[in-house]
Amino acid sequence: MPRVPVERFVDLVTTLYAREGVEVTRARRVAEWYAQASADGVHSHGANRVLNVLTWLREGEIRNHDRDPELVAAFGALERYDGHRSFGALNADFCMDRAMALADRHGLGGVALRNTGHWGRPGNCGWRAAERGYLGICWSNTEPMMPAWGGTRKSIGNNPIVLAVPGEDGAHLVVDLAMSQYSWGRLDSHRASGEPLPVPGGLDAAGNVTSDPDEILERGTMFPMGFWKGSGLAVLLDAFAAILADGNDSAKLTDGLEISQVFLAFAPGKLGGDVAARTRGVIEALAAANPGARYPGQAVLAARRETAAQGLLVRDDIWTKLLAEEAKG
Amino acid sequence: MPRVPVERFVDLVTTLYAREGVEVTRARRVAEWYAQASADGVHSHGANRVLNVLTWLREGEIRNHDRDPELVAAFGALERYDGHRSFGALNADFCMDRAMALADRHGLGGVALRNTGHWGRPGNCGWRAAERGYLGICWSNTEPMMPAWGGTRKSIGNNPIVLAVPGEDGAHLVVDLAMSQYSWGRLDSHRASGEPLPVPGGLDAAGNVTSDPDEILERGTMFPMGFWKGSGLAVLLDAFAAILADGNDSAKLTDGLEISQVFLAFAPGKLGGDVAARTRGVIEALAAANPGARYPGQAVLAARRETAAQGLLVRDDIWTKLLAEEAKG
Repeated sequence: MPRVPVERFVDLVTTLYAREGVEVTRARRVAEWYAQASADGVHSHGANRVLNVLTWLREGEIRNHDRDPELVAAFGALERYDGHRSFGALNADFCMDRAMALADRHGLGGVALRNTGHWGRPGNCGWRAAERGYLGICWSNTEPMMPAWGGTRKSIGNNPIVLAVPGEDGAHLVVDLAMSQYSWGRLDSHRASGEPLPVPGGLDAAGNVTSDPDEILERGTMFPMGFWKGSGLAVLLDAFAAILADGNDSAKLTDGLEISQVFLAFAPGKLGGDVAARTRGVIEALAAANPGARYPGQAVLAARRETAAQGLLVRDDIWTKLLAEEAKG
Repeated sequence: MPRVPVERFVDLVTTLYAREGVEVTRARRVAEWYAQASADGVHSHGANRVLNVLTWLREGEIRNHDRDPELVAAFGALERYDGHRSFGALNADFCMDRAMALADRHGLGGVALRNTGHWGRPGNCGWRAAERGYLGICWSNTEPMMPAWGGTRKSIGNNPIVLAVPGEDGAHLVVDLAMSQYSWGRLDSHRASGEPLPVPGGLDAAGNVTSDPDEILERGTMFPMGFWKGSGLAVLLDAFAAILADGNDSAKLTDGLEISQVFLAFAPGKLGGDVAARTRGVIEALAAANPGARYPGQAVLAARRETAAQGLLVRDDIWTKLLAEEAKG
């Protein structure tokens, strides 16, 4: 993969979105959102997706693209917004920021969002919260992607959840995980590379356990993470988000649009205690006990630093297509 | 297992705890807490544990048993308490109630608790919130029980988490799950029955994947649920709870005492929408898609109704021991 200066990548993508009528500062924020995912090593939700977003704009999948989420109900530290199918990335950004503002006033803040679209990499919200010193939790429902444990028809989403705890010098603790054992993107990467999965990832068409990503993606079904556990958690995250947002639950969704999400921020500094030092302590204790294990967020920080030093990794075919789009003028 | 009238069981256990000097209404609430777990079919955290609690009282593991948690910091909808090693059950009960009271005032409420002990069945808090119409989330850290993914020495807790969404006529959505693929109690049940685990549950002493519960419990290590996913989530839940509570993180714990917990309650009615009807809709959609699958909470409700009709299931040996303790006078 070639390395591209981050600013060059962001400028190019901004230009493409602005040509579709998106207000330029918003176009730039969307470009930065996807660039951040790639900068952090999450290519499946980064540069690889910016052309999909272009297609969604052209096909009208993304609507009201210049509109912020609309407040529809509020009570104290809890607010509900409608995303009106605008950019999932900008809606999520807005709601996490709003949750942090509520946490400043109330110690913690909760924002529920409905009718929002693909948000790309969920982890962006967690990293954003951690960088500003907040503990954050956010999650989304999705369209049905897996059978609930014990069934065979797809009925539950992979409903990604993010938890973030702020540390020192960028060493934050962040998990960003879908309820499936493997993300769609990871299955797809293994299929492309021909590498089998390290642990079985689902069932084939005949209902047998398999580690073949092609079988799972094309004819079979994904396992929930931890089997019955991820299945149960997925049901709860879906109902929780749909109810708090008064939005769609998974059963009402056929694609990743008009989904429901929750954003929680906590301002631990309001209660006292040296948060960043405590986080460092947790990381140090893990490293001492398990020198071979990485703490959650460690790989992201390494990728982020590599990007800062060397530029953004963008797949050849994606970069070629982006340059071709740019040249159309 | 014999069936015992719930009131008879509660009276007996109340008597035993009161004899150890516990104020009688508090002794009764602890007895009811453990009875509730058994009533709901969670025997491993119910009647099977009441004699352990008696031992902890006698050995001074539980301290300040007549004391409620002490408020140590507060800001708006977020509060921090010290549990002073009193009953984990009563401390958790207190904090979930406090989170609900904060949610009444602020839409949502967050309570962090430190220095609390074994809380028995975490799910009790979720069911309590759901029965009162709140959405609830709570979790705990524990002493290290599993290696972080990629390591071999125990460094992460099984940190149970509960999510609850209120439904109609007792049909609430509730998950109550530890970060290990199997709970200690379930491994122990399989060991007792000689039944192998349905999916591998950990590593044996030589580091090989195994479904033998005895091997896992005695010489090996448990898998986190979903392997790397449960590992990452366990680290975040630990750090989150320890920081919000300004309490111990897993690395500082050698037993399940003086642990850190978080309790969140949401009052969705404050934002409008028919919560219980939405929950019923989610349950109905799951049943329609996967007639063979149970919704999270379904088995508990069935056990609860069976207990109400037939009395509490208590293991023979436990009931015999309880009667013997009672006879000591």
